[in-house]
Amino acid sequence: VAIKVKTSKLYYSKKLPTPKTWGSGAILIYDRIFDRQVKASAWVQKFEHRYSVKSGEKLKNIDQFPLHMKKILKLAEGIATRDITLVILGGGSVGDFGGFVASVLKRGVRFVQIPSTWLAAIDSSHGGKTGLNVSKIKNQVGTFYPANEIHLVQEILAGQPQERVLEASGEVIKISLLEGKRLWSSLRDVSKLDSALYWKNLPAMVSAKYKIVSRDPKEESGMRHLLNLGHTLGHVWESQMKIPHGIAVLYGVAFAIEWSLHRKYMSSKDYYSIRLSEFGAFLPDRLELENILAKTRDPQKLLLQDKKMSQHRKIRFIFLRAPGRTVIESVTVAELLAEMKRQSL
Amino acid sequence: VAIKVKTSKLYYSKKLPTPKTWGSGAILIYDRIFDRQVKASAWVQKFEHRYSVKSGEKLKNIDQFPLHMKKILKLAEGIATRDITLVILGGGSVGDFGGFVASVLKRGVRFVQIPSTWLAAIDSSHGGKTGLNVSKIKNQVGTFYPANEIHLVQEILAGQPQERVLEASGEVIKISLLEGKRLWSSLRDVSKLDSALYWKNLPAMVSAKYKIVSRDPKEESGMRHLLNLGHTLGHVWESQMKIPHGIAVLYGVAFAIEWSLHRKYMSSKDYYSIRLSEFGAFLPDRLELENILAKTRDPQKLLLQDKKMSQHRKIRFIFLRAPGRTVIESVTVAELLAEMKRQSL
Repeated sequence: VAIKVKTSKLYYSKKLPTPKTWGSGAILIYDRIFDRQVKASAWVQKFEHRYSVKSGEKLKNIDQFPLHMKKILKLAEGIATRDITLVILGGGSVGDFGGFVASVLKRGVRFVQIPSTWLAAIDSSHGGKTGLNVSKIKNQVGTFYPANEIHLVQEILAGQPQERVLEASGEVIKISLLEGKRLWSSLRDVSKLDSALYWKNLPAMVSAKYKIVSRDPKEESGMRHLLNLGHTLGHVWESQMKIPHGIAVLYGVAFAIEWSLHRKYMSSKDYYSIRLSEFGAFLPDRLELENILAKTRDPQKLLLQDKKMSQHRKIRFIFLRAPGRTVIESVTVAELLAEMKRQSL
Repeated sequence: VAIKVKTSKLYYSKKLPTPKTWGSGAILIYDRIFDRQVKASAWVQKFEHRYSVKSGEKLKNIDQFPLHMKKILKLAEGIATRDITLVILGGGSVGDFGGFVASVLKRGVRFVQIPSTWLAAIDSSHGGKTGLNVSKIKNQVGTFYPANEIHLVQEILAGQPQERVLEASGEVIKISLLEGKRLWSSLRDVSKLDSALYWKNLPAMVSAKYKIVSRDPKEESGMRHLLNLGHTLGHVWESQMKIPHGIAVLYGVAFAIEWSLHRKYMSSKDYYSIRLSEFGAFLPDRLELENILAKTRDPQKLLLQDKKMSQHRKIRFIFLRAPGRTVIESVTVAELLAEMKRQSL
């Protein structure tokens, strides 16, 4: 039984598409902050079936999942399964949650993502990862379930406050360093991050991600692991210090660059060409890295994820030789801890 | 992003395969009745990581799902995700539950089915359907996730009591009528159901199911719907009268045959060739159908599944022209209710 899973169709548009697009079986799951925005709330109310959620990691808590499903199934009553389309409007947590719901509701229904944050538009809404958290450990339960459609909507994204723009910077720098060619060239001389810049470069950032995902859609060959550049320690800082994901990744990328230089994977020339570029200035400098490393408590516990793993455990770390050139290497947790110590001195 | 989903590999064997087959990352989820069987329990205890469950529909209740996942994740601590293999030993409910767990645990892990009942060996373990129940409605949440391996083990299946043999009869007669060729020919003159008969015909029954599933693995084209022969009313009786699934299907197949004759889809000749065959004698006769129909309370409520559906709602009903020849036709719930009335007079 060979099952071919759908691919996502991308739409770039100025305005939100009309809800009629998805027929009478559309069910909207949306971040309730949109109830307070005049234009978006008018759009939301056009859906006969809708379910508002509070964004954030709590939404992804598995303990709440049965109750959410009961409510969503109640909304789906009277709609034939083949007519259901779940439309998800929100940022990363809403997308992860909504995508999971779509993947298991009646064994999987059609599903449309409308990312509402730059982080989701650039990164998390693409590639089909969905997830719930179990006992505060992220994405322990989930599926690979690419949306049928992803709508990147300028009026939704451009309305994001500057704070959300900065929160996306880690993923922006990550994907441009991974791509290393035209995207990196067009961003390296940029000294100001704003929505206009992101919108202009969004198609290039998105296609750079798909290029990697398509070679390893279900994280089997290890290729997709490249997207974890900056995430090994990023996740530690995100969960321990409650730093936004993208900022934590920004620190993680800086750490990876320092380690890559120290291991001589990266030449001094390449190191300074990144560090001294306008765009590279958004990366934390060595002093900032020292500071965050000094404040990191018990990293071992978080890195090992669970008690039964030992320091000899190997984890795949993404090093950078130069923009567009990576090295995936298995390092032990002990080696990573030693490097953290080195960089914090 | 095109994702190709794995296909199931089938193994027919006399004895249970050694747990070593699946490496140190094997986690067994099994029906706890095997703790009371000397041979099987010795096998169970060879698994370092194991989780016993009580079979039955309660296991599939979504309210229990978060707790089950916490316990199973605890067992998985210290095992790298890529090394995890979930091995499921049990009947239909254990398979549905275990398959769902496998499909969402860390976004999907390798998964092995060892069906322990005839019903599961013949039908439910094949084709990738997994499911949980929400508010007592079956399989409202689930996935299509074919097992990597399905082991059909004679020592497990032959040990089933005669009661389980009879409980499978509905699915046996269903699949042989759908196949209509060699399988039907070899079963039509059979007058005694037992494990030896099932074991002998198991490969033919299983491949008849795969032939249908492979043309519509995710229930999209409608072709897979053929497997629902006898299930429309079967599900009603199963849930209302607590009749075992296979017995309810047996009644459902008989009802479908009567209706097929009445609608003249089936000729009298074909009708009597089924009815008067030795194997056909296992089907309830008209009097037994009258009895069960007379006892059926409020079928409308169960058929509509939810309050918002009307009697004008169409459902796809599987009629039979002759063994191997089916008609899928949309009928309204009102038409089905009228036919139930006709057959109960």
